Amino acid sequence: MKKLNIGMIGYGFMGRTHSNAFHQAPNFFSLPYKPVLKTICARNAEKVKAFADQWGYESAETDWRKLVDSKDIDLIDIASPNDTHAEVAIAAAKAGKMVMCEKPLGRNPAESEAMVKAVEDSGVANMVWYNYRRVPAVTLAKQLIDEGRLGRVFHYRTVFLQDWTISADLPQGGAGLWRLDASVSGSGVTGDLLAHNIDTAMWLNGQINEVTAMTETFVKSRKHNLTGKEEPVNIDDASLFLARFSNGSLASFEATRYARGHKALYTFEINGENASIKWDLHDLHRLEYFDHRDEGRLRGWKSIHITDSDHPYMKQWWVPGLQIGYEHTFIHQAADFLTAVGEGRIAAPTFRDALKTDYVTDAVLTSAKSRQWEKAKTA
Amino acid sequence: MKKLNIGMIGYGFMGRTHSNAFHQAPNFFSLPYKPVLKTICARNAEKVKAFADQWGYESAETDWRKLVDSKDIDLIDIASPNDTHAEVAIAAAKAGKMVMCEKPLGRNPAESEAMVKAVEDSGVANMVWYNYRRVPAVTLAKQLIDEGRLGRVFHYRTVFLQDWTISADLPQGGAGLWRLDASVSGSGVTGDLLAHNIDTAMWLNGQINEVTAMTETFVKSRKHNLTGKEEPVNIDDASLFLARFSNGSLASFEATRYARGHKALYTFEINGENASIKWDLHDLHRLEYFDHRDEGRLRGWKSIHITDSDHPYMKQWWVPGLQIGYEHTFIHQAADFLTAVGEGRIAAPTFRDALKTDYVTDAVLTSAKSRQWEKAKTA
Amino acid sequence: MKKLNIGMIGYGFMGRTHSNAFHQAPNFFSLPYKPVLKTICARNAEKVKAFADQWGYESAETDWRKLVDSKDIDLIDIASPNDTHAEVAIAAAKAGKMVMCEKPLGRNPAESEAMVKAVEDSGVANMVWYNYRRVPAVTLAKQLIDEGRLGRVFHYRTVFLQDWTISADLPQGGAGLWRLDASVSGSGVTGDLLAHNIDTAMWLNGQINEVTAMTETFVKSRKHNLTGKEEPVNIDDASLFLARFSNGSLASFEATRYARGHKALYTFEINGENASIKWDLHDLHRLEYFDHRDEGRLRGWKSIHITDSDHPYMKQWWVPGLQIGYEHTFIHQAADFLTAVGEGRIAAPTFRDALKTDYVTDAVLTSAKSRQWEKAKTA
Amino acid sequence: MKKLNIGMIGYGFMGRTHSNAFHQAPNFFSLPYKPVLKTICARNAEKVKAFADQWGYESAETDWRKLVDSKDIDLIDIASPNDTHAEVAIAAAKAGKMVMCEKPLGRNPAESEAMVKAVEDSGVANMVWYNYRRVPAVTLAKQLIDEGRLGRVFHYRTVFLQDWTISADLPQGGAGLWRLDASVSGSGVTGDLLAHNIDTAMWLNGQINEVTAMTETFVKSRKHNLTGKEEPVNIDDASLFLARFSNGSLASFEATRYARGHKALYTFEINGENASIKWDLHDLHRLEYFDHRDEGRLRGWKSIHITDSDHPYMKQWWVPGLQIGYEHTFIHQAADFLTAVGEGRIAAPTFRDALKTDYVTDAVLTSAKSRQWEKAKTA
Repeated sequence: MKKLNIGMIGYGFMGRTHSNAFHQAPNFFSLPYKPVLKTICARNAEKVKAFADQWGYESAETDWRKLVDSKDIDLIDIASPNDTHAEVAIAAAKAGKMVMCEKPLGRNPAESEAMVKAVEDSGVANMVWYNYRRVPAVTLAKQLIDEGRLGRVFHYRTVFLQDWTISADLPQGGAGLWRLDASVSGSGVTGDLLAHNIDTAMWLNGQINEVTAMTETFVKSRKHNLTGKEEPVNIDDASLFLARFSNGSLASFEATRYARGHKALYTFEINGENASIKWDLHDLHRLEYFDHRDEGRLRGWKSIHITDSDHPYMKQWWVPGLQIGYEHTFIHQAADFLTAVGEGRIAAPTFRDALKTDYVTDAVLTSAKSRQWEKAKTA
Repeated sequence: MKKLNIGMIGYGFMGRTHSNAFHQAPNFFSLPYKPVLKTICARNAEKVKAFADQWGYESAETDWRKLVDSKDIDLIDIASPNDTHAEVAIAAAKAGKMVMCEKPLGRNPAESEAMVKAVEDSGVANMVWYNYRRVPAVTLAKQLIDEGRLGRVFHYRTVFLQDWTISADLPQGGAGLWRLDASVSGSGVTGDLLAHNIDTAMWLNGQINEVTAMTETFVKSRKHNLTGKEEPVNIDDASLFLARFSNGSLASFEATRYARGHKALYTFEINGENASIKWDLHDLHRLEYFDHRDEGRLRGWKSIHITDSDHPYMKQWWVPGLQIGYEHTFIHQAADFLTAVGEGRIAAPTFRDALKTDYVTDAVLTSAKSRQWEKAKTA
Repeated sequence: MKKLNIGMIGYGFMGRTHSNAFHQAPNFFSLPYKPVLKTICARNAEKVKAFADQWGYESAETDWRKLVDSKDIDLIDIASPNDTHAEVAIAAAKAGKMVMCEKPLGRNPAESEAMVKAVEDSGVANMVWYNYRRVPAVTLAKQLIDEGRLGRVFHYRTVFLQDWTISADLPQGGAGLWRLDASVSGSGVTGDLLAHNIDTAMWLNGQINEVTAMTETFVKSRKHNLTGKEEPVNIDDASLFLARFSNGSLASFEATRYARGHKALYTFEINGENASIKWDLHDLHRLEYFDHRDEGRLRGWKSIHITDSDHPYMKQWWVPGLQIGYEHTFIHQAADFLTAVGEGRIAAPTFRDALKTDYVTDAVLTSAKSRQWEKAKTA
Repeated sequence: MKKLNIGMIGYGFMGRTHSNAFHQAPNFFSLPYKPVLKTICARNAEKVKAFADQWGYESAETDWRKLVDSKDIDLIDIASPNDTHAEVAIAAAKAGKMVMCEKPLGRNPAESEAMVKAVEDSGVANMVWYNYRRVPAVTLAKQLIDEGRLGRVFHYRTVFLQDWTISADLPQGGAGLWRLDASVSGSGVTGDLLAHNIDTAMWLNGQINEVTAMTETFVKSRKHNLTGKEEPVNIDDASLFLARFSNGSLASFEATRYARGHKALYTFEINGENASIKWDLHDLHRLEYFDHRDEGRLRGWKSIHITDSDHPYMKQWWVPGLQIGYEHTFIHQAADFLTAVGEGRIAAPTFRDALKTDYVTDAVLTSAKSRQWEKAKTA
């Protein structure tokens, strides 16, 4: 089998999920390429060496340009903080590498547009890690919608609730906490969490036309974890918006890191004329389905345990009743990407798909300031 | 409309549920008789007078024989402790009164047999308050089974879990605590709780043939709440049995007052070839239903919110989505009894039906001592 | 005990819940007055007579002015369509009667303001049937908040989801369907459903300052059920808004009759610094509670079965584990009103409290048109 | 790091879970040895070669004795059908290899006793794959019990419900279906499913003293999938028993493959004087906990989402809120075994621990025939 050599940028949380995806995909999926963990790159030489040893990377680097320039690398996978995405991706595309990038694409539409242009100009395969599309339950939801089971859609409702930044002792940004510094991340929960809600929503329910939004920073200043200085908090802690989709349905979106009791409660619900669907990341192996066409006396929400061989991706795993977890969504995405490359197909979400999401997050941030309804650009 | 005069014996917990049943039934159901709360009887003259005032009884008595002998009483309803059931019921039947009796029928099969004989000899209408048959969700379960939705039944599984007697300070019997004194109650959880499980089970799934049982009294002696003397505890705190039904299905039954965390968790589940049903008293307005004939990808347990007008009894109440509670099961039973009397029909469960349950509880208690499988007599 | 004579206007859904409240309250609560179902009034002479017979009203009328003018009536309870509220309430107040009124108060702030003025000028006891405050679980939520358990509040999230108007065959207003005609009801789901969400929210979390809203009418015209003519639908089918409370917390509100699978799913969640609370009308006897001060390993959402004697209102009912239902919220409100009257206290929500809610619903409807953030007036 | 070479016997469902365990453990846990997938062995030469390629085994064999005799193998892991366990394990132990064995240990106590003797005589490290002990939620339950949180235990309740053998078309044993042939498997659900329930139960709650059991074979004969001949079904389809633990608590156990609607519903509940615990394999990342010492008004079952870094094993995985799945239990067991070997400790469950479970399953099968209570031997 042909090998496909991977150069991974970043060894943090996402560096691990991506590495694991390529480590596991070939054991469970029939792939046209054997992915090889070729080189891992990060700034700390000692730590990157240890990571390479643990995960079986053949080599470790501290300068990402070496990977981009290397003939041994087929694919650059960007799992480093958001402020590196554009520069690395554009260089990789120009070097003719396939590029995968952790979400969000850029820190703002300008960066994202440049990234799209780079991969499209080079014609390289590209994908963004909006991994939740490949939760089997979410993929099944997509199938049901595509089959027309819901009829006309009236409502879409989604939240992403966390509570990890409530503590007054939390520092303002710094090492390991780049998500709390807007200059690195681009925004707070809007780009970090809401972007997931928006990607899934537009995949399932089409284009979002316009939004009215509000954001909030509950704690206005914090001590920086390196300098010790009290600094203004520059990210949004919470971001909510109402929206209209182009199919006429109404939506409510909310993301926050101040919802006590929720660790990563990403949920969505979609209400159609004939049927409705609910999903919840805290029990990601279940899908809730209501079908009004059921016999009247016996109508109800059905909790489907997504572990059967006729559920998306699941015949590759264990036997009915035995659930998979979070990391499998990345394995599925790696497998789908490699398969698509092998077949000369495009695997979504592409950079361009991710740009559409960035246009909506941009409209949200704009509306929160303008206090007006704002249209979302389309890509 | 004709009136039907009720003589109620007992004003405890069950005296209240029965009084409320007759108080509410005519406002929500079209009945052939208007039930009249004629006379309430209990031993404490002062308290029975106050109860009569509060509930609108026309008179109060302390001697139940007065009610049995009165021409003004059409129906004797027995809501007093178990040791009074047989004597009152037999006298009432001999006096030609209709008789309703709180469960269990007698303290033992001998008492129950005499009670059945009395009502059948007199030919009076009779009924036992196994109220859980008339939870709308349970009635719907019965309909689904009668329609043959389940196919061949393989398993029946039921528990009744409480935790109110765990405390070491609980006294041994005495005033208000007759359920803890076997000389009054007949047995502990076997007659008090398991009898409900058995009545519902045989109604839904047919005759229980044989059982192997174990019982336990966890705390062996307690202080009596009147005498202050340490006395041996004579009731069973927990009672479990395995059983075979005459339809070939296997069953597991358990009742206990030592299951920390459960206040009145009466549940049952029935597994058939084609479909399964679950129910839970803690959410009595829901029925869980699984149908294997559903499309494979979309199979799951459905939670049916039993509040629609096509659910049993529910068109008499509010609008879809608005739940009823515990007391309504008694209202339904009162309405069904009065309707059946008006139409010259028999309303189940009759005294004879309740005797069948007593034969099973008797086999359970016998097996717990004999450590053998025991057959249940049939009535 | 002193009697308190009730004149009830309306015998529809709400006429039944109110009648039942006064019918049941004295049996379960110790009250300073015995409520008497004196006169029922509605337009159809035959039906109102039948209703009086079934519920035990002493007399029936077709002209509400007779009740207002009668010396035998102490309390006028308005359970008729919204377009009658102002006229009846103002006349009753002027006649010195106590006045209870089904929600919303008026069809618009002008009507509501006049109603508030009337009762306050007359000094008569007055109350609006925002019954959900008296679900025991909701009352417990209020206690926990008042005790300061939550700390600083960050988020409030609430929906009221129904699906009964989706059908294309549904007529446009007419007999029995006045909720679908804005000239009678004032608005669609905004006044009918969202008003409940707003009343509870402001009771639990204080004043709502400003809103940005959107409403939708999904089906633009329907046949009138009397005339058979196709008419424009003049109500809002769905109404969503984002809000800021005066305590700095952010909120999301949604009400719709187009959420397939939900019959009356009224839910709210409130997230505080230290604890969070969730509630759901479809399981109204439960409260979900998360306390971050719990030991780390053992933190989780707790499902509290609100059936114990130390839960609000519950010691009046049955024993632990046995749930009550929807209608009990009205019984509690009737009991609280009568008790407050007996003690010379004011029982909330008063007409003035309800006016505050009307100001918010008005801001919502205004914002939906203006596409701007709108401030809510305060009463 | 020292390498530890693994010889795997069997490439079926369990061959995959074990291979994955050794493949993944070193990426997520700090281990004293690096496990090497050295040789995979199974009977079909072509398929075993393909499996070796996919999983990265260095070589493939069709004769297990080659692995036992090889100097390059440190550990023999038995993932082949039950009728091979004893012969392979005994030979491996005699050859001085560490031995891991899929459960149940042998097909009957005689086989199991010989296996225990072999590993103990040789002094080799040994372990049985009762993987559910290492579900983080189950490990947490063990911690809570060991900390004395429950107080005196009254009840243990456990089921393992499946529905995959209901179909009338299912063949009787044969290729890939050895679990349906008692000559290979030893028994039906008793050894396959109940053994898991028993292992966990005795780990959490101590020795089971005596049992009364019933088993059933619902479909008496089926066509063999190779011969096409109708043959008697020789396994138990369902197996239930009541038991007494040596700590005085009462128990109910049930396993079946005829519970329509359940794919692998392994649940247990344990009720103590002060607290209770529930767990469910269908949502393996949650633990339900009730503590009676909580404030009265706020008592309830808490659903703990076992994804925090202070939960067992979880700091090795992702971030709070992100669940793991079924296969991780095997990864944890592999990691614990390797760690224990490195530290010269014994990791449970050993072969001797598994023998204790076999004695209970044997008592169950005996009681089902004798219709008597039977004592369980202790190991």
